[in-house]
Amino acid sequence: MKVVLPDNSELELPAGASGLDAARAIGPKLAEQAVLVRVDGRVQDLRLPLADGDTIQLLTMRDREDPDALAVLRHSSAHLLAEAVTRLYPDVKLAIGPPIENGFYYDFDFVEPIREEDLDKIQAEVDRELAEGREWTRQEISRDEAREMFADDPYKLELVDTAEGDISLYTQGDFTDLCRGPHLQDSKPIKALKLTGVAGAYWRGDSNNPQLTRIYGTAFYSREDLEAHLEKLELARARDHRRLGPQLDLFHMSEYSPGSALWTAKGMAIYNALEDLRRRENARRGYSEVKTPLMWDVELWKRSGHWEKYGENLFRIEHGESTYGLKPMNCPGHMLLFNTQLRSYRDLPIRYAEAAVLHRDEPTGSLQGLTRARQFSQDDAHVFCTEDQIQQEIDGMFDYVDFLYDAFGVRELAHAELATRPDNKLGTDEQWDHTEGALRRALERIGLRYRVAEGEGAFYGPKIDFFMDDALGRPWQMGTIQLDGQQPERLGCTYMGSDNREHTPYVVHRALFGSLERFIGILLEHYGGDLPFWLAPVQVRVLPVGEAHLEAARDLAGRLGAFRVDIGEPTETIGKRIRAAELDKIPFTVVYGDRESEQSLAVRERGGEQSELSLAELLARLTPLLPSEV
Amino acid sequence: MKVVLPDNSELELPAGASGLDAARAIGPKLAEQAVLVRVDGRVQDLRLPLADGDTIQLLTMRDREDPDALAVLRHSSAHLLAEAVTRLYPDVKLAIGPPIENGFYYDFDFVEPIREEDLDKIQAEVDRELAEGREWTRQEISRDEAREMFADDPYKLELVDTAEGDISLYTQGDFTDLCRGPHLQDSKPIKALKLTGVAGAYWRGDSNNPQLTRIYGTAFYSREDLEAHLEKLELARARDHRRLGPQLDLFHMSEYSPGSALWTAKGMAIYNALEDLRRRENARRGYSEVKTPLMWDVELWKRSGHWEKYGENLFRIEHGESTYGLKPMNCPGHMLLFNTQLRSYRDLPIRYAEAAVLHRDEPTGSLQGLTRARQFSQDDAHVFCTEDQIQQEIDGMFDYVDFLYDAFGVRELAHAELATRPDNKLGTDEQWDHTEGALRRALERIGLRYRVAEGEGAFYGPKIDFFMDDALGRPWQMGTIQLDGQQPERLGCTYMGSDNREHTPYVVHRALFGSLERFIGILLEHYGGDLPFWLAPVQVRVLPVGEAHLEAARDLAGRLGAFRVDIGEPTETIGKRIRAAELDKIPFTVVYGDRESEQSLAVRERGGEQSELSLAELLARLTPLLPSEV
Repeated sequence: MKVVLPDNSELELPAGASGLDAARAIGPKLAEQAVLVRVDGRVQDLRLPLADGDTIQLLTMRDREDPDALAVLRHSSAHLLAEAVTRLYPDVKLAIGPPIENGFYYDFDFVEPIREEDLDKIQAEVDRELAEGREWTRQEISRDEAREMFADDPYKLELVDTAEGDISLYTQGDFTDLCRGPHLQDSKPIKALKLTGVAGAYWRGDSNNPQLTRIYGTAFYSREDLEAHLEKLELARARDHRRLGPQLDLFHMSEYSPGSALWTAKGMAIYNALEDLRRRENARRGYSEVKTPLMWDVELWKRSGHWEKYGENLFRIEHGESTYGLKPMNCPGHMLLFNTQLRSYRDLPIRYAEAAVLHRDEPTGSLQGLTRARQFSQDDAHVFCTEDQIQQEIDGMFDYVDFLYDAFGVRELAHAELATRPDNKLGTDEQWDHTEGALRRALERIGLRYRVAEGEGAFYGPKIDFFMDDALGRPWQMGTIQLDGQQPERLGCTYMGSDNREHTPYVVHRALFGSLERFIGILLEHYGGDLPFWLAPVQVRVLPVGEAHLEAARDLAGRLGAFRVDIGEPTETIGKRIRAAELDKIPFTVVYGDRESEQSLAVRERGGEQSELSLAELLARLTPLLPSEV
Repeated sequence: MKVVLPDNSELELPAGASGLDAARAIGPKLAEQAVLVRVDGRVQDLRLPLADGDTIQLLTMRDREDPDALAVLRHSSAHLLAEAVTRLYPDVKLAIGPPIENGFYYDFDFVEPIREEDLDKIQAEVDRELAEGREWTRQEISRDEAREMFADDPYKLELVDTAEGDISLYTQGDFTDLCRGPHLQDSKPIKALKLTGVAGAYWRGDSNNPQLTRIYGTAFYSREDLEAHLEKLELARARDHRRLGPQLDLFHMSEYSPGSALWTAKGMAIYNALEDLRRRENARRGYSEVKTPLMWDVELWKRSGHWEKYGENLFRIEHGESTYGLKPMNCPGHMLLFNTQLRSYRDLPIRYAEAAVLHRDEPTGSLQGLTRARQFSQDDAHVFCTEDQIQQEIDGMFDYVDFLYDAFGVRELAHAELATRPDNKLGTDEQWDHTEGALRRALERIGLRYRVAEGEGAFYGPKIDFFMDDALGRPWQMGTIQLDGQQPERLGCTYMGSDNREHTPYVVHRALFGSLERFIGILLEHYGGDLPFWLAPVQVRVLPVGEAHLEAARDLAGRLGAFRVDIGEPTETIGKRIRAAELDKIPFTVVYGDRESEQSLAVRERGGEQSELSLAELLARLTPLLPSEV
């Protein structure tokens, strides 16, 4: 038989040859280095047979950053963990142990729950296994055999019962697990394996099921990769907005309201800076600020179509014979507001903007500070327009996005996704060429990285989603620009055209920041808390050296009234207070003692040296830091 | 026997003499004019016997504005209505028919529901009764007799069964009703009786009971009083914010969200003017703007005490094993925010302000536009302070109220209620003298009318509620200043005192506008929609005479960019558009045609004449209308 290699050359092999055989046929060095084979795009065990005509790619230790190669390494590592735990805790029941982004986990049902401290013992056992070395062998068995084999393990039994296709087992040493694979041949390529934590989890993620103990770990093809990973985690942890928020006293979370932040005055300085910018820019760009209710009868959510698509995320309020849903988005309210008047084509476009409080029922386990919250606000808007106006409206939105990325200095974090015509599209290919082309040109005009999600647009038009990366490089969906020909029709929106007939307007849904909460989370991580001057909650701190200078310090603070200024009262030494101002990430600190006067202030810039400035010089230094356009 | 007259003179009467006998003893004219007698402060039928030593006051036709005299007149009128309805609809069942503010009603259970149009027929029947004249006679019977008498009428029967004390009947003509009285002797004093409307109502106000038909009416001791009343109603209707809101396109209501307004861009201009003022003034007065979640686990509402007191008004969200309540007020969130840091006496006072969206479950039937809504926001704040700081904080709040009443020109609508020490008070009378005295002095200092609600304060301190009257003169509760020593304790708020020991801070709850929605409703009614310039949604409208002047009009609007300006496009004659601008209650209208230029603009002020001003003169006219302090 013949297989095709990545360079399109063909390799002749005996029938039934495996990936490993193919490696050997190419050369002994490759056979030694090979860890997996990718067959027609999917990785498989090196020892499984290939078929005639397969296109194959051998993955080696050098493919250490290949996502598939990493996933298999980590999957095999999860089996090593399970072997170690089974040996240390013979009564444990095993659930599942998949690879995940950046690592793997395994879920166990312990008789006595274990704790973080127990990880050392388990790590030592895994290390011993790695030192001894393990090989994986695969075996296929019947469903009945599997049932018998896992009779004592309710989780595995359930997996056997719900599995589709053949049942396969993987064995290393004296440990056998139910598993589809693929796996490494042996444990040699696992150069670094580190258990990283313990958490609670539910069987199949359902809180009605028994709680399990999840042990997390990670593994790499080299020690250096593990070290780089841990270093990156450490940096990310320092920038994690969930840590920075409470530390800088910007916001706090409460167990009484999971997923909703409590914002302090300092946090609100940032929040309101965004909110003021949003209102000012909206006014400048012809948006009308409106305000619509939070609670709507589910009959409306049914009419709008949200009940069907988002019903699960809707918080519900039972009220007599009605059920209300707390709004997860503003659209239906804006459509009803549009419907309060007769509209003419001369009135269009009508642009409604609202940053109301929205609620979405995200599962407790998925909540993540400001970036995945249950309560948040979006810089939401709905533009009602004619078909002819769509292009101009979308261009205006891209200008706005462009402006925002500059204002906040976040362009490098951003990318977009363009969802194009689906199979069930309305309209002609020429029309779609036109709209998709316009979106592409707009994306390129503002120089935003983007990828195309082929066929993922709605049937009435393409869609753009905007993303930004957090400190761990994970992308979060932020804004969206989405053309909608359906909801305005469902909610009976019409306008009188120049032809004196009723038409349904198009609606462009758009959020540019997206969630203000999430945007602030991303900003905090991007700047590691060192927010640009205009966003800093406290912009200047005045430090009187002693009680004697307090009056003069207050006076100075008054003179700096155009900025957010506070006073670090002389309750501690000046050195400690300078250090505290650094930890509070305050852009400018002014020390005021015997030697200082309005003519000569000791000014320290965040992360910089101390310099001597007059009040006038200081004001001249600060004023340009409030960008005129924001 | 002897009775005492209002001038403290004594009148000798035979034992068992009635009020009418007393009137006759004084003079025949008085006997003719008398309608009721007030005995020791409570009105009773003229024909009921007096007792020795009673202090009596005879009420005559001249006491036509006396609330008791009016109530009795209207109560008797309700009986006339019931007689008429019984004659016209022999199968009707009667429920109750009390006097109310400004009139009376009677609830009926009709076999076939009647409609507004049927009122004419009933009015004619009542008019006939009045022309014939009726006398009322009272009779007391036993409970058993009453049961027998009203065996066919389930509502009366229920009243008999639940009545306390003796059962009395009143008969006029051939109509007898179960009634405590008092009533007029005869129908002569009823100089005007008008049926005003039909509505649905539930027996005992409970929506689980059968629905009844309520007929409303009003009655007076003179025709002039009725006419004055109807005129006042007509004026109030023109000023009703529920009518003005949609008419001026400020807000709309939707059946999908009862009790929550949909605010248009114009309405938001008012809303945001209040909100901007609130934020600016709060900042100036040392309040910290914060933001806390809307949804809280009911466990928190139980800890705070709201569950017990306000549980019925809480919209509830069932969520797995938890129940959340949508916040009706901000207090517990602010207490938790206070608790996120260790606090020292040096940090106090801490003043948290928040105008979050609040929800209260008001019964559907009680909803009333913006003045009684389910969704609203308050200019809420909580001040955490030491006992020594209470006085200064309350003084500051009164200054703030004083400022607001001036800024909005609503002082004449406002009054306050001071709730004083209750029986179960904490602290000494001297302490209460001190705090109550301080509140009184503050009320007098800002010159606010107030009444004292003796004994209605909370046990830990007195309370002030602020009220304003709507267009019908009905008072609505707006703001409050309330001292709280209990909730901070329940939620574990503490600070470290100068004595190095933990103390519980006092909290002063305060809202000054109260509900922003209600405040806007009152403002609209107060000004009949003619809002002061700085609050007007559109401050200037530019009217180009024809298409040829559109460009110049836009240019002019741009030059007036410091104000809220719109353009009345030339889709209709200039006359119609000037009239429309008046109906839209726009403070300034500028007509721009061939004869106009920047040197000479035709400016028309709301309700005034047209005058010729240059652009510079117009700007000089408008700018001072934006008060610098608001």
